[in-house]
Amino acid sequence: MKITEVEAIPYRIPMRKALHFASGEVHAIEHVLLRLTTDEGLVGTADIPPRPYTYGETVASVTGLLRGLFRDALVGTDPFARERVHERLNRTVGNPTTKGAIDIALWDLAGQAVGRSVHALLGGYTDRLRVSHMLGFDEVPAMVDEAQRYRDEYGIDTFKVKVGRRPLALDIELTRALRGALGPDVELYLDANRGWTATEARQVLDATADLDLTFFEEPDDAAEVLGRRWLVRLSRIPIVADESAPSLGDAAREIQTGGASALSIKTARTGFTESAKILAYAEAVGVDVLMGNQIDTQLGSTATVVFGAAFAYSARRAAELSNFLDMADDLTVRPLSIVDGFVAVPDGVGTGIEIDPDKLAHYRLDEE
Amino acid sequence: MKITEVEAIPYRIPMRKALHFASGEVHAIEHVLLRLTTDEGLVGTADIPPRPYTYGETVASVTGLLRGLFRDALVGTDPFARERVHERLNRTVGNPTTKGAIDIALWDLAGQAVGRSVHALLGGYTDRLRVSHMLGFDEVPAMVDEAQRYRDEYGIDTFKVKVGRRPLALDIELTRALRGALGPDVELYLDANRGWTATEARQVLDATADLDLTFFEEPDDAAEVLGRRWLVRLSRIPIVADESAPSLGDAAREIQTGGASALSIKTARTGFTESAKILAYAEAVGVDVLMGNQIDTQLGSTATVVFGAAFAYSARRAAELSNFLDMADDLTVRPLSIVDGFVAVPDGVGTGIEIDPDKLAHYRLDEE
Repeated sequence: MKITEVEAIPYRIPMRKALHFASGEVHAIEHVLLRLTTDEGLVGTADIPPRPYTYGETVASVTGLLRGLFRDALVGTDPFARERVHERLNRTVGNPTTKGAIDIALWDLAGQAVGRSVHALLGGYTDRLRVSHMLGFDEVPAMVDEAQRYRDEYGIDTFKVKVGRRPLALDIELTRALRGALGPDVELYLDANRGWTATEARQVLDATADLDLTFFEEPDDAAEVLGRRWLVRLSRIPIVADESAPSLGDAAREIQTGGASALSIKTARTGFTESAKILAYAEAVGVDVLMGNQIDTQLGSTATVVFGAAFAYSARRAAELSNFLDMADDLTVRPLSIVDGFVAVPDGVGTGIEIDPDKLAHYRLDEE
Repeated sequence: MKITEVEAIPYRIPMRKALHFASGEVHAIEHVLLRLTTDEGLVGTADIPPRPYTYGETVASVTGLLRGLFRDALVGTDPFARERVHERLNRTVGNPTTKGAIDIALWDLAGQAVGRSVHALLGGYTDRLRVSHMLGFDEVPAMVDEAQRYRDEYGIDTFKVKVGRRPLALDIELTRALRGALGPDVELYLDANRGWTATEARQVLDATADLDLTFFEEPDDAAEVLGRRWLVRLSRIPIVADESAPSLGDAAREIQTGGASALSIKTARTGFTESAKILAYAEAVGVDVLMGNQIDTQLGSTATVVFGAAFAYSARRAAELSNFLDMADDLTVRPLSIVDGFVAVPDGVGTGIEIDPDKLAHYRLDEE
């Protein structure tokens, strides 16, 4: 089996509700749909979320690569020869979500080719993942209300609170209000998206020490190396590396040098193959892993649940799978649903992603 | 698909030439053939080498587990649900080669079920591995002669020299004689199987510093923690953990604490799944990996080449694949061959292991 065609289709879907957090805001998602076609007529699909402020990728750079260098690296190759494909792709540095999506599409093709789910091929640990919902910036009552609504409506009992604002009291009071309103049985953790200094983050840790928080993600800029290490040493909860550990090498460097004490894994940027390596590294050294969300559509969230539910080590904690709820629509014909706090792994072969041609025609940004 | 039967068949094959090394000697191999049968009539196969002096397993303990606790954990389960199977097996501590073989047999079943090679399912990097040949204890001229013969006959240009004897001059002179006779283009490394103290190993390192050795495996007992760390710090070549790092957790502990600076991976003890995790850990932290040999039959060596050739990181160095040449026979109908210094990944579905029923009937130790 050989890859014969590489399609990169930019599309735009408005947000139902804009997302606000310390490092930016999102009013509509502009993603690129990747499709790899083979000589056997199979189509492997994955979603690419270009994030210029995080990875330097844009819709133009992603489509350019997939119609140029990466097309040349893919056409004519066997989709099972993942390790050889990655060696070729990695001659081009960076571009993590483009490479991640290619890996997911290769796995999708492999699963389809053998008539099995990718979830089973990866390890088949459990058929569903518990969901963690991200609460973006808003007024305190609105955020408390959203959490209560998501708990009532979806059964979600784990919330990631976007923080990183000044004055610090804003987010300290927000967190206290959430704990007060939601009670002791809900899991709460913070994500500051590098919004604070190490010293400010330490102040927040102290001021929230009685609130039973489980994680603190990217409290400050990890590039300010000594400040971050000092914070990690002082913290009684794991400091999670997300944007500071976007690859296997970065993840190892941050953990080994004390720049973090837990890892966020996002299939959008490390696909399944490199995500599995990061997961193995985390298991080897015994640090916690969160399955993160790259403001993923249903397509991206499907990839996350397929991967996260396949391994015991990634299935231990709630995964960030609910961002798609804020989007006005999606390209899939098989929408995910959150029931009793869980998302189920989709049935079917490959990753289970199936594109609605009418929706794609409606939302695509290129000429048909 | 469900596993319906677990067979554990002990067998004995004499060595053509007995193996001698610092931690023991081997005149015949007594292994256990594992066969997992499914309700679809597929049979997954793997070889179990019980090594009482290394892992505490015996033929009796292996067959006992596979007819008792592990049989109960396997029968009725889906062979694709590897992560769930391992969770169940790991309730029983130790027994690495039994668990490793179960993992390989599960992968063999998965490959057969989908009509693909396990090599392709794992990553499909390259179709062959360069071979490193192990030179066991003998007189210096005999060892030089063996190396020259293997170079001429099989094209092998990498040799692992078994050392660890006293006086140290014995092995220092042996290594010097090998380098002298084989010239500068051959790769040589040492394996002392914990035969020396840290101080003695340091003396050997100094006395062989001009011989361009690439690795020093298990020079001393890693349980003598400070001595080993001191040696690792002083050594200009990587100190390889083999028996001191038989699992993912052990591998991470030894590397993280300075007890080793490279890792030997043996599919016989960590199967494919845990071997892939160790490989990912090694890649994450940037330490070299050797694909090792558990005095493997052709069955075991087939598993090693299927795994080692599937990933870029394990295919970088020669793999220890030639111990089967010292065995008088084997159970396979598809013998491996070493040509121009390489062993090719077998064609066909699963791991490519196929058992000769007549040979099995001849060598098996239980009543038929």
